Amino acid sequence: MKHEEKIDILITGGALLTLSDTMDVIEDAAIGISGGTIRFACPRADAPASSPAETIDAAGCAVMPGLVNTHTHLPMTCFRGLADDLPLMEWLQGHMFPAEAKHVSREMIYRGALLGMAEMIRSGTTTCCDSYFYESHVVQAAVDAGVRIVAGQGFIDFSPPDGEEIRKKAEAAQKFIAKWQPLAPMVTPSLFCHSAYTCAPETLQTVKRIADDADVPFMMHLAETKEEVDLIRSRYGMRPVHYLDKIGVLGGKSAAVHCVWLDDSEMEALAASSTGVCHCPESNMKLASGIARIPELMRRGVAVGLGTDGCASNNDLDMLLELDTMAKLHKVSMMNPTVMDAATALRIATTGGARVLGLQHLIGSVEPGKCADLIVLDMKKAHLTPLYHLYSQIVYACRGSDVRDVIIDGKVVMRNRGLLTLDVQKVMDDVREIADRVRRKD
Amino acid sequence: MKHEEKIDILITGGALLTLSDTMDVIEDAAIGISGGTIRFACPRADAPASSPAETIDAAGCAVMPGLVNTHTHLPMTCFRGLADDLPLMEWLQGHMFPAEAKHVSREMIYRGALLGMAEMIRSGTTTCCDSYFYESHVVQAAVDAGVRIVAGQGFIDFSPPDGEEIRKKAEAAQKFIAKWQPLAPMVTPSLFCHSAYTCAPETLQTVKRIADDADVPFMMHLAETKEEVDLIRSRYGMRPVHYLDKIGVLGGKSAAVHCVWLDDSEMEALAASSTGVCHCPESNMKLASGIARIPELMRRGVAVGLGTDGCASNNDLDMLLELDTMAKLHKVSMMNPTVMDAATALRIATTGGARVLGLQHLIGSVEPGKCADLIVLDMKKAHLTPLYHLYSQIVYACRGSDVRDVIIDGKVVMRNRGLLTLDVQKVMDDVREIADRVRRKD
Repeated sequence: MKHEEKIDILITGGALLTLSDTMDVIEDAAIGISGGTIRFACPRADAPASSPAETIDAAGCAVMPGLVNTHTHLPMTCFRGLADDLPLMEWLQGHMFPAEAKHVSREMIYRGALLGMAEMIRSGTTTCCDSYFYESHVVQAAVDAGVRIVAGQGFIDFSPPDGEEIRKKAEAAQKFIAKWQPLAPMVTPSLFCHSAYTCAPETLQTVKRIADDADVPFMMHLAETKEEVDLIRSRYGMRPVHYLDKIGVLGGKSAAVHCVWLDDSEMEALAASSTGVCHCPESNMKLASGIARIPELMRRGVAVGLGTDGCASNNDLDMLLELDTMAKLHKVSMMNPTVMDAATALRIATTGGARVLGLQHLIGSVEPGKCADLIVLDMKKAHLTPLYHLYSQIVYACRGSDVRDVIIDGKVVMRNRGLLTLDVQKVMDDVREIADRVRRKD
Repeated sequence: MKHEEKIDILITGGALLTLSDTMDVIEDAAIGISGGTIRFACPRADAPASSPAETIDAAGCAVMPGLVNTHTHLPMTCFRGLADDLPLMEWLQGHMFPAEAKHVSREMIYRGALLGMAEMIRSGTTTCCDSYFYESHVVQAAVDAGVRIVAGQGFIDFSPPDGEEIRKKAEAAQKFIAKWQPLAPMVTPSLFCHSAYTCAPETLQTVKRIADDADVPFMMHLAETKEEVDLIRSRYGMRPVHYLDKIGVLGGKSAAVHCVWLDDSEMEALAASSTGVCHCPESNMKLASGIARIPELMRRGVAVGLGTDGCASNNDLDMLLELDTMAKLHKVSMMNPTVMDAATALRIATTGGARVLGLQHLIGSVEPGKCADLIVLDMKKAHLTPLYHLYSQIVYACRGSDVRDVIIDGKVVMRNRGLLTLDVQKVMDDVREIADRVRRKD
């Protein structure tokens, strides 16, 4: 007698893009999930017998791993569209910093993050990597929404830090990790130093050491603008990546965000140290920062993930739109339409992101044993007709609103576009209340 | 006693972006429509009394002119995603041309165009400018769907044309115009010469003369690739715009599509001759053609409209996504975030397109006396919360799926995302049948 598998959720009938190393695509697939884990993913005809508690009919749909957004500042959804079309420094110092100074509170962070969670789920993101002030309130929002998170406690030096300051930072870092590590793998605590130009070398080194000791990711913004490179060169006499390499904060579970202004030797150094890169093309476009040389980084073996950055510089969290823009941007930037194909773009947004976050053994692909983070895309729409190639269709024609169902850690968090973990009306109202204060300049 | 206006449709309660010359934005507006024409557009408190046959409640929505897509090849929706990530010539000669040679038929054109109409309505486009083989079948699809169209009869020389050939082309042009001019302003016939490198000078001149005589638009692809510029230079001893200027086909109602590879003197020549430009940023990115210098063209006074190009090189017809990409692309390309702001991007996609198509007196803005082509955007969504600035929100956060209602020529063609003029299920099935043949290589 055939062994009957105990299965919580069975997804049947869709075309499964596994995003496995061999990039298997299974037409008319069956995916069995129990206890938060994928038990099988195979042609329906080969599926083991099971009596699932819930069956999701994915006929006419594509099923794929949830998207991994490697760089967000979720509370900034509160500032979406507050200031646009401005030079970076005017945007940052004239609008974002003052708005943050006045309005950042534990309440604002939780509410803004919760709205970000709603938007991410509705556009197919199942894991995000976030950093902001009071990051614990972002983690709480992720836990409440059921979204997997790599949460970065943020560090920045407003003035050169003394020993006491460094000691306090180290303590905060250790406390943050200890608080959230028990919730792994739904929560991965991490440490985020704002940048090489806003953190002293002692801060970077101390925080990196604590991250390494706890085996959690260490992240920072890096080479976002030309001005930043010039600043580091004048301050430390070398380009940013070489400076970071010299002070010993690359490698391990380090990842750098943006990496727009790297020369060849810096790309080599990132590759040699196995430092990952979080690529945020739309933010870099909108703020006119520049175009990161991603295909060249990948050719050197650097792990690359995709991110939307915060809402104030994008202005959305839609990874399917980000994918499309990313692929097109690199084609035109390098004047070569083959330089990033659809399958590569999808890998960056799934397995690439998982690798950058050090979670490649858990997420990023649909394979037995991995966490059950999956999305179902409804392909039966006018703008998705006809369908010749799944990868192309998803990258160049799908957008967030085509995501029908979302499963994270084996739990359905969106069904038929209805959010199951959040009261989206209340979430929106709560942020509108904050926006009213921002607008009134309270 | 207050005079009571006879009104077919009254839209109330939304925030109206008029896109008028003075860019008036009216909170809590009332828009009265009758007989296909906008009768009033004003604050609700100032609206004349009326007994409308239908009232549309736009509370929490933005109302704006329908989008003008200035460059499409709608039947190519049948080839959406058929071949991607390939060098231009391999894509064109190895995939598109063979697919067209085998599968283009009157039936394919009508079906593909109808699917394009469905997608355009669902993403807020109310006027398109199309060109393809057997264009009359595209026009029929537009008429059936209720979409306003500038329809370009296409001309191309497969070998150097003799006098008889030219005479035949002239006759076809005149016949096409005579057939469709009676349906103006829902249908504007126009003439589309494929390009300066695929049409002989006599063809260009003859077709342009007929267009001028009938006062209809004359259009062509221009300077899409560097190879094209090199070809024209080697053939005619000058750059494309100067060549077209010399043979007398610029100016009047001429418009050129793409214009990626122009030098300064060519930009001046386009401005001096009042030749419009149709800008297709996503197609130019995806095919790695290059980045048109649109802000520089606009600074010189050239009228610029936005287009998606055909579905096979985009791969969608969503003008709200095209807007977003356009603005970001020019910011990063010119390393200046102020070079194209949100209001400018919206003008390009509405009034700019109207001007390029010679329809600025009829469409492109919401003002009394203009054709009633309007869209209602539902702004009460997670990814559109909070709302600080309407222009920013629409350009950087809205996408086609946020369009709730569409009115063209005073008729509601989409209500609450339901298409009223098309059976979208049948339209999709009909194209899938064609795609099956393409896939089987019948």
